[in-house]
Amino acid sequence: MPSYLLTLAYDGGPFHGWQRQDGFDTVQERLENAFATILGEAVAVHGASRTDAGVHALRQAAHVNLPKPFTTTVLQRALNGNLPEAIAVRAVRTVPDRFHARFDARGKRYVYRFWCSPVRPVLGLARYCWVKRPLAVAAMREAARALVGTHDFAAFATNPGYERKRGTVRTIRRVHIVERGHGVDLVVEGDGFLYNMVRTIAGTLRDVGLGRTTPERVAQILATRNRSAAGMTCEPHALYLVRVLYPAHAFAESREVKPSVPARLVDP
Amino acid sequence: MPSYLLTLAYDGGPFHGWQRQDGFDTVQERLENAFATILGEAVAVHGASRTDAGVHALRQAAHVNLPKPFTTTVLQRALNGNLPEAIAVRAVRTVPDRFHARFDARGKRYVYRFWCSPVRPVLGLARYCWVKRPLAVAAMREAARALVGTHDFAAFATNPGYERKRGTVRTIRRVHIVERGHGVDLVVEGDGFLYNMVRTIAGTLRDVGLGRTTPERVAQILATRNRSAAGMTCEPHALYLVRVLYPAHAFAESREVKPSVPARLVDP
Repeated sequence: MPSYLLTLAYDGGPFHGWQRQDGFDTVQERLENAFATILGEAVAVHGASRTDAGVHALRQAAHVNLPKPFTTTVLQRALNGNLPEAIAVRAVRTVPDRFHARFDARGKRYVYRFWCSPVRPVLGLARYCWVKRPLAVAAMREAARALVGTHDFAAFATNPGYERKRGTVRTIRRVHIVERGHGVDLVVEGDGFLYNMVRTIAGTLRDVGLGRTTPERVAQILATRNRSAAGMTCEPHALYLVRVLYPAHAFAESREVKPSVPARLVDP
Repeated sequence: MPSYLLTLAYDGGPFHGWQRQDGFDTVQERLENAFATILGEAVAVHGASRTDAGVHALRQAAHVNLPKPFTTTVLQRALNGNLPEAIAVRAVRTVPDRFHARFDARGKRYVYRFWCSPVRPVLGLARYCWVKRPLAVAAMREAARALVGTHDFAAFATNPGYERKRGTVRTIRRVHIVERGHGVDLVVEGDGFLYNMVRTIAGTLRDVGLGRTTPERVAQILATRNRSAAGMTCEPHALYLVRVLYPAHAFAESREVKPSVPARLVDP
């Protein structure tokens, strides 16, 4: 069965998140419907990240095994012609049969976007988290340093019980905060994220930026492993999944190719 | 009667343009409703530009004469609290009684935004005009030079008959084309614009950018004074009113202040 990796962009606004759920309009279902139209039979589309309702994607990754081979450009056009306009297939590539978009992913990068202005950003309300006062970005950067590394992030997950199987330890590789005019973008990259983790980090760093909490307090919040210690979960409409990262060998035809150096993470 | 100049931003999407019309939701009516709530009586709000349905504003200008004086910050907050979230008052300043937002305006600047990519911009569909192929920006700039200056723009107005009173001669002071990644912004500043003029210029320059017409042809189109010679009227959702410009003396308390040098245009 030929396998394909899709790179997807979507506006999270119209959808009830990625994952198929009866009675809800989801991105996964829309993709599976498009494949059913093209193929005349049902196939399952496996996404790397189960983005929540309202969360956008610039480069979500998903794989699919098809009953017959397609030219990647033909498949891309056929999908884009059968998807709602709020979902687009940016790229299609062939991958080995055993490739799995979720299990092979070794990293994800998200961006959380703040807009700081006393006046509401009328053209950005659906894209930014509006903050009425300036954010103290230097303090936010200082606070963010406590989060980088391998930690138990239970304090930053909405429902750690739900995650029990995999545990609540994750590695954040980097946190960048980029200022541009009124915009403050929080870029977070890690090996994986707990439920609502990026949005809770955003809410906590927003508290730091507004002077409601201190940078030092963030390390203490992490140590409590107690969700009630952290800040609010920020709204989903300002969160963007921007990259899913894979080790280069995930795309190799044979698993024999085992790099002796740490795998370079590649962006599909 | 104290007079105020409002600087306004709005998302054109939800509204049937600026100008009040029975049975339609318009920006002017929403503002007048907000004033009626605050004052307990009706006042008229006069806009500098009657933006069309779907057209956005980053800095529309409008004046109002009020029955009693207000602190500008109080007025701004009261209005923002009584307007739909798609309209915001960015600034309020006092102006002389005789100030008129439309008749005193000496220039307007618009931006028309293209997004060039074979893949639809899912997060920008309501903000950009999507062009599937790259635009030849150098050719567009060459073509734009023919438009700068004082000309009869009848070929670029949807309904020149409607404009008969003022005629169809206007002055375009500058046309800039700014490329940034997939985005191509067309910036047009002039003393005034005919109905649909910026959108018809955008449609004609898009034709040049796509190689459907030549830069030389644009001067000929202008000379025809015939609307059917020019390109299509581009969609409104990618057009932004970004500035309304006034001569400094419009804000002076006395008309006696007449600058002997050409008036510097100021951005309220």
